[in-house]
Amino acid sequence: MTFQVYDTTLRDGAQREGVSYSVVDKLAVARLLDEFGVGFIEGGWPGAVPKDTEFFRRARTELDLKHAVLVAFGATRRAGAVAADDPQVRGLLDAQTPAIALVAKADLRHVERALRTTAKENLAMIHDTVTHLVAEGRRVFVDGEHFYDGYRHDPAYTASVVETALAAGAERFVLCDTNGGMLPSWVTAAITDLTDRIGVAPEVLGMHAQNDTGCAVANTLAAVEAGVRHVQGTANGYGERPGNADIFAVAANLQLKLGLPVLPEGCLEQMVRVSHAIAEIANIAPDTHQAYAGAAAFAHKAGLHASAIKVDPLLYNHVEPEVVGNDMRILVTEMAGRASIELKSRELGLDLAGHPETLSRVTNRVKELEAGGWSFEAADASFELLVRSELPDAAPVRPFTLESYRVLVEHREDGAVVSEATVKIRVRGERVIATAEGNGPVNALDEALRVGLGRHYPELRNFELADYKVRILEGSHGTGAVTRVLVETADGRGGGWTTVGVHPNVVEASWHALVDALTYGLDRARV
Amino acid sequence: MTFQVYDTTLRDGAQREGVSYSVVDKLAVARLLDEFGVGFIEGGWPGAVPKDTEFFRRARTELDLKHAVLVAFGATRRAGAVAADDPQVRGLLDAQTPAIALVAKADLRHVERALRTTAKENLAMIHDTVTHLVAEGRRVFVDGEHFYDGYRHDPAYTASVVETALAAGAERFVLCDTNGGMLPSWVTAAITDLTDRIGVAPEVLGMHAQNDTGCAVANTLAAVEAGVRHVQGTANGYGERPGNADIFAVAANLQLKLGLPVLPEGCLEQMVRVSHAIAEIANIAPDTHQAYAGAAAFAHKAGLHASAIKVDPLLYNHVEPEVVGNDMRILVTEMAGRASIELKSRELGLDLAGHPETLSRVTNRVKELEAGGWSFEAADASFELLVRSELPDAAPVRPFTLESYRVLVEHREDGAVVSEATVKIRVRGERVIATAEGNGPVNALDEALRVGLGRHYPELRNFELADYKVRILEGSHGTGAVTRVLVETADGRGGGWTTVGVHPNVVEASWHALVDALTYGLDRARV
Repeated sequence: MTFQVYDTTLRDGAQREGVSYSVVDKLAVARLLDEFGVGFIEGGWPGAVPKDTEFFRRARTELDLKHAVLVAFGATRRAGAVAADDPQVRGLLDAQTPAIALVAKADLRHVERALRTTAKENLAMIHDTVTHLVAEGRRVFVDGEHFYDGYRHDPAYTASVVETALAAGAERFVLCDTNGGMLPSWVTAAITDLTDRIGVAPEVLGMHAQNDTGCAVANTLAAVEAGVRHVQGTANGYGERPGNADIFAVAANLQLKLGLPVLPEGCLEQMVRVSHAIAEIANIAPDTHQAYAGAAAFAHKAGLHASAIKVDPLLYNHVEPEVVGNDMRILVTEMAGRASIELKSRELGLDLAGHPETLSRVTNRVKELEAGGWSFEAADASFELLVRSELPDAAPVRPFTLESYRVLVEHREDGAVVSEATVKIRVRGERVIATAEGNGPVNALDEALRVGLGRHYPELRNFELADYKVRILEGSHGTGAVTRVLVETADGRGGGWTTVGVHPNVVEASWHALVDALTYGLDRARV
Repeated sequence: MTFQVYDTTLRDGAQREGVSYSVVDKLAVARLLDEFGVGFIEGGWPGAVPKDTEFFRRARTELDLKHAVLVAFGATRRAGAVAADDPQVRGLLDAQTPAIALVAKADLRHVERALRTTAKENLAMIHDTVTHLVAEGRRVFVDGEHFYDGYRHDPAYTASVVETALAAGAERFVLCDTNGGMLPSWVTAAITDLTDRIGVAPEVLGMHAQNDTGCAVANTLAAVEAGVRHVQGTANGYGERPGNADIFAVAANLQLKLGLPVLPEGCLEQMVRVSHAIAEIANIAPDTHQAYAGAAAFAHKAGLHASAIKVDPLLYNHVEPEVVGNDMRILVTEMAGRASIELKSRELGLDLAGHPETLSRVTNRVKELEAGGWSFEAADASFELLVRSELPDAAPVRPFTLESYRVLVEHREDGAVVSEATVKIRVRGERVIATAEGNGPVNALDEALRVGLGRHYPELRNFELADYKVRILEGSHGTGAVTRVLVETADGRGGGWTTVGVHPNVVEASWHALVDALTYGLDRARV
């Protein structure tokens, strides 16, 4: 039986607090998921949610999916009604998708207390609705809500729900851990017990895991190891509470660890791009530490073993980062030696192997700065500027020189808080004085610098200060405390870079990071 | 055999990109982990890392642990040397901890290519070092680095590493999935195969999982189900690449799912508080979707089933949120509920149980502030001032009122960076204007305030700004970003308190935190 990778980012994943996709967002996410090669995209609940009705309508003309089948999600008919006459069921057919997913109660307690109907009527609702939709030519999936809790509470009844759905013509019955309380060994045991009890092959079952125990990915894999051949998940694990199974980690594990070719050729390496693009659309900062897809998923603090990593990267990576579209990164940290600096430089496209003297100068400079509290592990752009300053051919162009600056913050008698900065700089031979206000001292300084540079460098307009972090470091070597500032700059086209500044004065530290940020961005724009 | 919950937040967890604990941070994290009830706290690598040496030195007098045993981490002796003469091994003993963890290579390829020694010498290094440390009276744990990869590559050699360590007197041998590539079923199989091969009980083994497949928690549970009785993890799963097993999810699953009482009575419910406080110290935004500990871990978009959830919450929660110190949230409101505010107040010695109206007022005020970006999880002093402001009998005395302040930062032509602040305040009916310089804008403001208050409050001299943290929070409700500042003040007698301020302007946010810090300190000194 074909393995089915079934995505529900746009339906169950949209339950995540704070997420709200427009119809255009949903179309864009569907295209990305298709590029990742999922087999099914559950797009929403047509009829019940107006935005979802609209999504399915526009999808018919605007979505040209290469791999995925679009699925409409809804419920079984109301108690006491007839499926063919139920407007909610009608809404699912009106979406004109090849497949429909129906949620059905699989826990008797929920049937009685939430749905407020009888055990028998619940089975009739499932049978009637599935039969009707199949007769209308739809592929039907049934999601057994609260399957695992129900099966523990009353296995006979929950098993009869599964049997009813399959007998009525459902293509797969999906075992949902709706409350997310399962562990992998429990999943295995429940599936084995169920298939023994009702005499079905596990291939007709599916798995839908929530991450409340931190085991959603593992629970999904456990189901597959028990024979299940349909897995549900969401991009980056977005979903209610701790979220759903992350479809990226699930697919990567199935393909790379269990050897199941669940995605079409060439799709797995789209993962990092698709993952980050969906995060942008959902307006959620990508999780840098996400398994497989995170920016830090293959980042190593090289330290003592830099030379071993250089020779034998696979001794230190569980898979090759390239297969999921990721990169290995070497972090330049305290204890940084020549080998890790060379490795890091190579990653940035700067080959120092042939320049041993430059490598020594850079290494000494990094060590000196790190002793003073600088840290380049999260500031690739500052590190690149530093290395390039030592390379005559590649030295970055400094866009200006500073004469002086002044920043003022006032809490006035009327309670208003104002910040104002003045910079005096030389830009291409010209002396410029510029003043600006801001919502804080660093913002004011940033604004004043942009005013001063703006005429010569109009491309500055695209750069935006995206994040700003401050850390106070205890003094070493008997000196006082210093402040370390990290500035993340966005280029307005989805990219960005991070720079660092260190000084006892937070404003001066921020200034260093800001100047590096603008220098790096302008230099990159120039190339 | 006793179950061992072994935390390595301060050692392996500190490998996380961007994390850099000061010695004071490390002491604070250790206290929090002890409150959570872990059995072991791995504090760092004394001798090799100066900050860690200092941590262990100060820990001897400044840490009074109720539950945990402190562990020094290091390596086996150098190849060709003698353990008793090896300065690195000496450094471990000098830390004077009851226990020592030794990392040993368990993968022959790493022995040969990274360590560059022979299979035989590696075993000798383990035997010699363990024997020496045991003879010196230490409990010894051996971490088998790359155990799983090694065992797959050459089971006989890797098994001999385990045997050597145990025969030499190691209390437990820890199976490390250093590259993080394992799945739960593979962990089970490897442990079963190993224990059969060398004829040991799984109780003498430990598990250390990394999260590269998204299965670190599940892999740890799989090891326990296979009989292992020592689990390693880090707070919030912090660690290199996708991180380590989250010790909070691991402990909660062991206790609540597998029924193993691995934490002392009363500790599990400290989870949320400890998790969030450590996140603040690490200066990492807490993951709202973290299993068990996240602010959204038990948050329901109630929708259709609001009444069913209200009547029967356990039908919708896999465990009761209170058992881990969390709250169920139904509406899309911010965090704190009455229950946790009452609990926290009681913890600070303020009983609100008998004052339902005050409790409501405080709860509403906290919700309002939290919606604006405030967070009291790591700022007990600000929280106490807030609660007491609502209690007529206990209201704190405000030492002054502000008229205005002004802060100036200049980078002068000669390169000098200077900060100067002027405050205009009323102290006990008198109008005071005071100006001071500082090494940054906040320091200048702090100094000016101390000058202005000094004559009336000489005890201020003892207070010292010990730490200062800044985080930019993305705006909600269409507003711009705000800045949250945490100020830690030391009382000069080993104690201290933390306060919080939030404002779009970092200087104004700092001002709030500074004023709370002085108010709290003076009030406490008065009592």
